[in-house]
Parts: sequence; structure tokens; C-alpha cells
Amino acid sequence: MSEGFTHHGGALAAAARYFGGEDWLDLSTGINPAPWPGAIEADWQRLPEREALVALEAGAAAHFGVSPDYCCAVPGSEMALRLIGQWIGAGSYRWPAYRTHASAFPDGEAADGPGGARAFLLANPNNPDGRITPARDLQAWHDDLAARDGWLVVDEAFADATPEVSVASRVGDWHRLIVLRSFGKFFGLAGLRLGFVLGPGPVVAMLRSILGDWPLGAGALVAGVAAYRDGPWIAQARRDLAARAGRMDDLLAAHGFKVLGECPHFRLIEGADGLFDRLAHHRILTRPFDYNPHWLRLGIPAAEMEWVRLAGALRNG
Amino acid sequence: MSEGFTHHGGALAAAARYFGGEDWLDLSTGINPAPWPGAIEADWQRLPEREALVALEAGAAAHFGVSPDYCCAVPGSEMALRLIGQWIGAGSYRWPAYRTHASAFPDGEAADGPGGARAFLLANPNNPDGRITPARDLQAWHDDLAARDGWLVVDEAFADATPEVSVASRVGDWHRLIVLRSFGKFFGLAGLRLGFVLGPGPVVAMLRSILGDWPLGAGALVAGVAAYRDGPWIAQARRDLAARAGRMDDLLAAHGFKVLGECPHFRLIEGADGLFDRLAHHRILTRPFDYNPHWLRLGIPAAEMEWVRLAGALRNG
Repeated sequence: MSEGFTHHGGALAAAARYFGGEDWLDLSTGINPAPWPGAIEADWQRLPEREALVALEAGAAAHFGVSPDYCCAVPGSEMALRLIGQWIGAGSYRWPAYRTHASAFPDGEAADGPGGARAFLLANPNNPDGRITPARDLQAWHDDLAARDGWLVVDEAFADATPEVSVASRVGDWHRLIVLRSFGKFFGLAGLRLGFVLGPGPVVAMLRSILGDWPLGAGALVAGVAAYRDGPWIAQARRDLAARAGRMDDLLAAHGFKVLGECPHFRLIEGADGLFDRLAHHRILTRPFDYNPHWLRLGIPAAEMEWVRLAGALRNG
Repeated sequence: MSEGFTHHGGALAAAARYFGGEDWLDLSTGINPAPWPGAIEADWQRLPEREALVALEAGAAAHFGVSPDYCCAVPGSEMALRLIGQWIGAGSYRWPAYRTHASAFPDGEAADGPGGARAFLLANPNNPDGRITPARDLQAWHDDLAARDGWLVVDEAFADATPEVSVASRVGDWHRLIVLRSFGKFFGLAGLRLGFVLGPGPVVAMLRSILGDWPLGAGALVAGVAAYRDGPWIAQARRDLAARAGRMDDLLAAHGFKVLGECPHFRLIEGADGLFDRLAHHRILTRPFDYNPHWLRLGIPAAEMEWVRLAGALRNG
């Protein structure tokens, strides 16, 4: 019974309620399980000051390789997808994808490319299948959309682990390109609610006019500005995520699963019928899909104990 | 020179840059300087779960005296004002008021009542003048607006200290009433970014469709659910705010200032020309108004040292 778990990942309380037990291992999201280790020590009493927001956006923009003029911090890229969709008004989106892509364009259609739509939204790397779309395809779509005043929207929520995939540095140059980035997934701090929208002036102005003068909590501001400056941690996290993904591939292949995707935050397996329930009975939560019962997405463990637990569950499930 | 400080309060970094010095006393906002004392210890790694949001909204709704069905948590009531204004499309607002009220209805006009507008937005207690509008006036405006499918929007950001002023419990019954509440001002934790919109089904549905599945940071969720349940602290904070406001009235009257308002979070004084600069040279930041140089709004100190400092500055300024 996986129906309650096909909306988003992370529903540990619901899993404990439905299957019982405590001490669940959450492999239902793609959040880096080895977070940036800095303390979240903020001044919670005062309103965040404008200077802190400017510093965060400057640091993040440098990390993305884009001008700070094109960089707007948002309280989570999930909310930003909805605001952008509402602002553009209508568009199509690649599917399968992150569920919120369909919510961002409620009147839109799933499609393999822009077609005649006013906007096209896709994730790169894609979620849940980990597929990477080459920059030349994105540029062709952008140029097509730009020629008729449309927008290409690229959700790069999982791009920090593989920065060579990103088109963030093209924002401004590709003048109808909007890129979304997420802080929480790569830095392992999703509870802070921090993301960024990279886009030309009208996009940034629209977001600022809605999000107002205090878009972020004090914790997101202090952690974000420090984490994006932490080059050594970022480089090591990329190596660690890649190494753990390789280990996951080996483990899943040893159990006969066909593994899809090139995003080191998660793996999608085919032929996974029934595996969600089998793992849940070992108190391991994964991510099933209502539109494809043969698929299961697994986040990737960090701690050795978690690897042992997953291997045991796959062996004995 | 107060031009840089007339947008919102809280610009301590700008004050230190302009006037020099450290160790500023911030009396430029109405945030309770004696915060709810619980620790902000959240699980920053995981995405907040739906159960936590439901529990927070239930606890807050009970505090406001309204059904949880009408209660939607938002990442700050400032952002919610903009979303509501955009959704309603056009309206008028009482002025002088909180600056964001004009931003919420950029095409609207300042007015003393609804007139023929599609919506009317006011704060109660009002900010910056601390004026309280009786419920009978609000009901008359509501009924007028409701008769032509308009909306009455009451910003109760400062109503927790004087709950008898609130019309939150009328939401649903007055079917075209929207009420906004703020967590940070009364509980003294503005850096968490937490507020609530109370309104009928379509208002809550609109906000949820934009704010998405993770509208709040993990810190806002843990602090909010515990603080709204903390009846003894809430009762004592109301007494403390009232007592400090009375002490402020005495201090300001002793220096010959005419004091306006009935909101214990702050006091507005008339005949304050030049006082902003004089207090700033004592490193005390207050809130001037570009539209009225005779006005100055002062937050109210908590610590005895701060009272001494303010009294000295008023005496020697």
C-alpha cells in the first residue's frame, strides 16, 4: 500500500503511523544525508536586514556563475515554481517530473518539448529519473521560445552535485531563460527553506514585489551565506555524493535491479513492483509513483549502519 | 537625516554605517523585546512534514478563536498582504498605515473607509499611530463590502497584546472578512518569518496553491506550535507589554511629548521634529516617517539598562 506516499517524499510520520515502528530510515527524498556541518545560530528576534539578503544573493550568484542582478533568493524553490507559473500564466512541462511542475502550470500539458506553448518547464537533472538534458537541447528550446516571447524554465534543484550540467551562467545572455536552484538538497538542510530564481530583470522584479522585504528566515540567511562560501566542503560533498551513488549502483545491480539516472542524489529503479512495501516492512521509506508502479526512487544512504540496513532489507525482503 | 530609515524599521546595519558606533539600541520596530524564551531547536535537515503544519495551524487557530479550517500559516504576514492584494486585484487602504499596505494594492487609493472599492485594508490596532477601530465600524464596513462581493482585510499584526480588539473569531461568520496575524511581533521572534491568514475557503485555497507544500521553515514550525500553547507566558507577556507601555507614556510625557496610540508594542509621538537625529547620536534607532516629519514612532525598551539609556538621551539630546 503506497498510495499515501506518492505525492512527495519525506512523509516519515505517515509511514510510522501506517506501518508502525520507529527508527525509520528515510530514503524517500534526494536530500544529501550528510549536511553542511555549520551551526544554525541566527538572531531570531530581529527582522532580517537588507544587507544580509544582499550578501547571500551575492555569494549564491558567485557559486552559480551568474550576476547578482539576476539572482533572487526565495523561501524554497517549490514556492518559486508556483509563483513563476502563475506569472507566466500557461505553459507545458516535461513529464515524468517533480510533482510541483504540474501544479505550476495547472492548465498546461505534459510534453517532450516546447511545442507551441508559451513556456516549457523541465528539471535538469530530471527528477525522478535522473536524466540529464544536454545544453544544446536547452539552447534550441530557449531560442525557439524566445523567438515568440516565451520562457524556458529549467529547475536545477539537483544541479549542484554536477555543476557541468547547469545553464545558470547563461541567464541574461539567453534572455528568456529562468533557472531555479535549491539550497536544501545539496547542502542537506531542507528545513531552512531556501532557493534561488535566476532570471532577467522582470522576473526578479516580479518575485521581489510578491515576496516583499523579508522573504527569508534568519536561519536561511546565516547558513546560506556561509555555506556557499565554503568551497572545500562543496568540492568534498560532490566527491562524496558521486562515490555513494556508485556504491548504490553496485548494491542495486547485485540485487538484479535496472538502475536509471545520472543524478547522484538518488537512483530510480525499474521492475520494483512490491519493493516499496517490502522495504517499508524493514522501516525503510522510499518513493513510489502513482503513475508507474514499476518505478521506485531511492535516496542514497550516508552512514555505514544505513548501508548495512538497506543491504539486509534488499537481501531478506 | 532620516531618509534612509523611513521605509521600514529595523535597519540597524544602515544606522551603524551612517551614524557610526556599535551597541545600538533598536527602538525602530514594534517587536516585543522580551521574546518567548523557548529554544529554537529544529530538524533543519529534513523537509517539514505535513503533520507539523496541521498541528501548528490547529494551535494557532485555537489561540485566535477561529476554526482551523479558516487558518493558513504563511512565511510572514508581510508576504501574505502582497499575495492577498494580488489575488483581490484592487482595493483601497487606510493611511497612514504599515507601508506594505500600499504595496499590496499598488493601484489602490488611501481612504478612510471602503467607499466604492472592491476591498478595504486596514490595521487594527493601526501602525504607526496605535489607533484602535471598534468592531462595530469593522462590521459595518464588512457588511457594505460583502453586499457587493468585496473584501474587508484587517491586519491584526499587533492584536495579540490586546485580544479584545480582534475580530479573528468572526472569520467565516463575516463571510467576506480576511484577518492577518503575525507571530514574530508578540512573541518577539520576527526572524522566524511566521504569520497567519484567517479567511474563508477560497482565500485559504488560494494561499495553499501558491505557498505549496512547505510554506514554513522548520524553526517556525517548532517554535510556533509550542509558543501558542504557552498560555502562562502569553498572559504574562500581555501584562508586561501593558506595564512597559505605561512607563513609556510617563517618560515621554515628562519630556513634553504628546503621545498617540493604544498599542502597547510602540508609541507614536507628535512634535518630534529633529528627535530622530538626536536619539541616533545616542545610538538609539527610532522610526521616522517621510510623509510626516513631526512624527516619530518608538518601540518600547525591556531591559532596565535600555530605559536608563533612553531617559538619558531624551534628557541630554
